[in-house]
Amino acid sequence: MSIGSELISGEVIDTNAGHIAGLLLGGGLRVQRHLVVGDCGSDIGEALNDLALKSDAVIVTGGLGPTVDDVTAMAAAHATGRRLLLNEELKEHLRSFSASLEGPGGCHSSDKQATIPAESTVIPNPTGTACGFRFTHMGCLFFFLPGVPSEMDRMLRETVLPFLCGRVTHKRVVISSFLNVFGLSEPQVDGLLAGALSGSLAVQMSICVTFPWIRITLRADGDTETEARTRLQGVMEKVRKQLGDAIFSEGHETIEQAVAVLFARRGMTLALAESCTGGLISKRLTDVPGSSAFFLEGAVTYSNAAKMRLLGVPQDILEARGAVSSECAAAMASGARGAAGSDLGLAVTGIAGPDGGTDDKPVGTVFISLAAPDGSWTKRFMFGGNREDIRILTAWTALDWLRRYLDVIPFPA
Amino acid sequence: MSIGSELISGEVIDTNAGHIAGLLLGGGLRVQRHLVVGDCGSDIGEALNDLALKSDAVIVTGGLGPTVDDVTAMAAAHATGRRLLLNEELKEHLRSFSASLEGPGGCHSSDKQATIPAESTVIPNPTGTACGFRFTHMGCLFFFLPGVPSEMDRMLRETVLPFLCGRVTHKRVVISSFLNVFGLSEPQVDGLLAGALSGSLAVQMSICVTFPWIRITLRADGDTETEARTRLQGVMEKVRKQLGDAIFSEGHETIEQAVAVLFARRGMTLALAESCTGGLISKRLTDVPGSSAFFLEGAVTYSNAAKMRLLGVPQDILEARGAVSSECAAAMASGARGAAGSDLGLAVTGIAGPDGGTDDKPVGTVFISLAAPDGSWTKRFMFGGNREDIRILTAWTALDWLRRYLDVIPFPA
Repeated sequence: MSIGSELISGEVIDTNAGHIAGLLLGGGLRVQRHLVVGDCGSDIGEALNDLALKSDAVIVTGGLGPTVDDVTAMAAAHATGRRLLLNEELKEHLRSFSASLEGPGGCHSSDKQATIPAESTVIPNPTGTACGFRFTHMGCLFFFLPGVPSEMDRMLRETVLPFLCGRVTHKRVVISSFLNVFGLSEPQVDGLLAGALSGSLAVQMSICVTFPWIRITLRADGDTETEARTRLQGVMEKVRKQLGDAIFSEGHETIEQAVAVLFARRGMTLALAESCTGGLISKRLTDVPGSSAFFLEGAVTYSNAAKMRLLGVPQDILEARGAVSSECAAAMASGARGAAGSDLGLAVTGIAGPDGGTDDKPVGTVFISLAAPDGSWTKRFMFGGNREDIRILTAWTALDWLRRYLDVIPFPA
Repeated sequence: MSIGSELISGEVIDTNAGHIAGLLLGGGLRVQRHLVVGDCGSDIGEALNDLALKSDAVIVTGGLGPTVDDVTAMAAAHATGRRLLLNEELKEHLRSFSASLEGPGGCHSSDKQATIPAESTVIPNPTGTACGFRFTHMGCLFFFLPGVPSEMDRMLRETVLPFLCGRVTHKRVVISSFLNVFGLSEPQVDGLLAGALSGSLAVQMSICVTFPWIRITLRADGDTETEARTRLQGVMEKVRKQLGDAIFSEGHETIEQAVAVLFARRGMTLALAESCTGGLISKRLTDVPGSSAFFLEGAVTYSNAAKMRLLGVPQDILEARGAVSSECAAAMASGARGAAGSDLGLAVTGIAGPDGGTDDKPVGTVFISLAAPDGSWTKRFMFGGNREDIRILTAWTALDWLRRYLDVIPFPA
């Protein structure tokens, strides 16, 4: 249960519930529902009593801050017939925490954050002022945590999960694996994986489209970790075989991380020349710590003058074929490679829109070119969607070319 | 209410509920709770009956697709004592829709998506196969929509909202405004706005931190639009005065959009030189359609060789002061400006980490420099957080420098 008027109004998207659900599921606990209510005492109280009837345990986040908006503790006390008490342990925590941040002087809000329902146990917060608390109400375990994701996450892992998991009897082990795919559509993945689960009742598969890539989640349970892992491995092998080199990574590895690993393995370097993506490919590759080992430089050449001066694109190509052309893309890639002295040169040029399209080259027309020691490749693409979609698809396709070149996998037809 | 096992497991974050809440609130309707349940018939049914008791209307999204996972229609029929009926109007919609996409031949899943609870009214889906439906159960209006955000959004705006808003009596008009701030902390904003609402009972203010900027939402209601607007304007004036030039935009304008508008107004051009941000600033400026009018080129100069060749940074600066230095940042900015022949040259160089820090220049040390016709400015910053935080803070601060220079506002001390 997430509490916050900014959540109920849609100003802020609640990410805590999904994060908690993932951790609980990993611990073999089933999540039945998420509920979001605003910072309103009666709504919170009604929800707590509803959930107590339906659940073994409820994790509540939000509304433990110092301001008058934050009414979770009061609502919880009221709904469960508890008094609100000033907790000396919490008062001391707040005093020392505030002192460490702002010097002595005291903060009037401290007392509010030290006041929790009677017959509660404190859940320590090592990184913030808002401690949590837990109590049992109508046979249901309630945990109250602050809404700040980093503080909540640490309290959940250090206190709530060990406590909860220790109480679960007949626990089943659940193990998850993720396979990440680019270049296939959802119906294609669906079709390829149609028979992968046959005879594997204890394995669940879900296919989740996260534009423009697809994540396949496999989840196996068993009485022991070995049993669950064995079940998972059997299905994983089938799925890997069916999807082949469309799988760019497993687990939580991004495509840029996968590319960075391959650059390190091959000991190669890269120079980039971007037009329509405007720095997006550079940005994504340099998101990876240590990318300076392979990424020498990038040129964002929006103007023709920049394409000529920085990349040596011949003026007659720009005049005869245009900046969005196969010839220009190839000249940009080899120019970037030559100027930087890198092993690979990658270039993209295209029309991301919304303006600039023509009959010959409508919005979505993109050329990608890769220059390498053993040859060069250039291809025309026609991407759909709006400006953002076209830029994202261009960056993904270019990153996938790097992955395939470095891993010696053929480019898709 | 959002339905989907991928939502309850945390694999996908539900954005529909927040989006719907924003639209309902704008229409003067109060949202009391969001609920998320998995694709499980009994969970869905129980939730529908719970919500019927507590609400005047419920908007349900998800679980209307063609696969066996999608059980919303069946669960809704079962929970409300309705039969499931094949709807001829829907069958025809599906037939023509599938034909337009894949040619004739038919699709076996069509019948499933044409089967809805008895005594329901169809909600047309102009852009997809999954039509919705509505019915009344225990005095509560239920609307069922598909989970695909774009399809759901259109059905909500075209059918559900007009229907719902037409039924609301004693409707109050609600008007919202947003003011977006960079460079002040939440306590600073809190302090500055402490008295802004005094005497304005019909206006609500919320302060929402979306790292690294802050959005202030003001919401006024009234019996008429004029009344609500007048109330809002009074508070807006106070807030604008208090926050001054820390407000970079109003409404949903991003800082890069604000910068693009200012470039157009001033008729100036830009060249960028990025080191630690690796293309992030270029990417964000070129997110804005039409940015090619002012953005001439960007250089992502990770290596020293690139800094010298592309930007003309003198070798003795790199050797004596290092690539992360005030002198190097200034040389990058003026070098980018000179090479591109632009009005402005903006450069950033720093240590984003996790490695590369020293005692003198720890991780988070960043230099930003701006070269302009009337002078140049260079400043050292010390940003906290991880690699991603440092890159985001650097890009935001650099964009804010551009905004301030172009709008003739002093840089912060």
